[in-house]
Amino acid sequence: MVQQERARLTREKILLGAADVIRRVGYAKASLGQISETSGVTRGALYFHFGSKLDIAAALVDEQHRITREASEMILATDASALELMMHLCLDLAQRLVADPIVRAGVRLTSDTSTFDSPIGDPFRDWIETFGALATRAQDNGETTATVPPDMAARFIIPAFTGVQLVSDTLTGREDLPGRVREMWEILVRALVAAENLATALQMLDDVFTAPGSDEEAMR
Amino acid sequence: MVQQERARLTREKILLGAADVIRRVGYAKASLGQISETSGVTRGALYFHFGSKLDIAAALVDEQHRITREASEMILATDASALELMMHLCLDLAQRLVADPIVRAGVRLTSDTSTFDSPIGDPFRDWIETFGALATRAQDNGETTATVPPDMAARFIIPAFTGVQLVSDTLTGREDLPGRVREMWEILVRALVAAENLATALQMLDDVFTAPGSDEEAMR
Repeated sequence: MVQQERARLTREKILLGAADVIRRVGYAKASLGQISETSGVTRGALYFHFGSKLDIAAALVDEQHRITREASEMILATDASALELMMHLCLDLAQRLVADPIVRAGVRLTSDTSTFDSPIGDPFRDWIETFGALATRAQDNGETTATVPPDMAARFIIPAFTGVQLVSDTLTGREDLPGRVREMWEILVRALVAAENLATALQMLDDVFTAPGSDEEAMR
Repeated sequence: MVQQERARLTREKILLGAADVIRRVGYAKASLGQISETSGVTRGALYFHFGSKLDIAAALVDEQHRITREASEMILATDASALELMMHLCLDLAQRLVADPIVRAGVRLTSDTSTFDSPIGDPFRDWIETFGALATRAQDNGETTATVPPDMAARFIIPAFTGVQLVSDTLTGREDLPGRVREMWEILVRALVAAENLATALQMLDDVFTAPGSDEEAMR
């Protein structure tokens, strides 16, 4: 058991070291030597866990999915309304993209066309499906109008979020990401919510993005 | 003069060959040998024009900027309204991202974090500035409401478009991109346009994205 725990810790050290090297020099230029050095793990131990750089990249993407999936399951289990859940999910992922090196590396590896031979579409499909279900619930419970079909809303919100985090990364290293995601939702609620419910939706947005005990607080 | 023209053609062949190689294997794995072979240009001629792979990447990005800047200047010189211009600019870029190999390669190189040592933010800043000016005009001429500040709209529209093209590329190789950009605008007009002007804006959207003589026709 102690040995198993030690192996798990070594694997984690390698992934964190790899995330750091990839952040600094990019995946293409990252070498196993640098990853071994940065993570403080011998080459032998590194090869015991991973056969190649591509294996490490795949493990980072898997680990990022595990982290974000667990986080979103916790959010989805709360009793927040469907519209509120969509805001929470976006804010939570934005905050992880700022603060969690594994999530940063996983997302970067996924969007970099040079990492894998074929682009990874599954996370986008999963998120679009989750948001499609939430947008349907939001429409059914009267939070949003029927004007924009739920699947169309989901097909836009996920790519829009993807672009917002990418441009924020390019322009400010994601420093302004939570603020940009808030602006995204200020625009989205105006498209999705009926005039008579807009004040409620904007108050909800304010609560999600600034209230104490919000995701922002929980991450500190 | 003949020699100058020949040199220009050779340079163009190299860039098209490089765009093709980068599309197939990605920038990191592209070699000068492959680029020379694919473009049908000798290694000697290739080295006469470009000192390194990075030089070719920089030239592709420059050429993509020239093409899209010229296209957007032509669109901006028409007498379309500010809101219509924003739709036209998005559709035109979407169509070039489907059909023009140089534009595809340039955009891919810019968003790939592995290409250049520091991310290229200037194109995003330029587009956000252009759209900020157009969104201000749209508000001044009453096409859009004052609810969403023009700079906030621009700060969202450009990242949103960036993500829409990226996700469309990942999921369908950009086959559905013009349709997705249309959906993006169907949602945006509902956020930006007053209820009493919505029918006009949706008719405009329909004209831009489907009418004969639109950008879509002009590209064929």
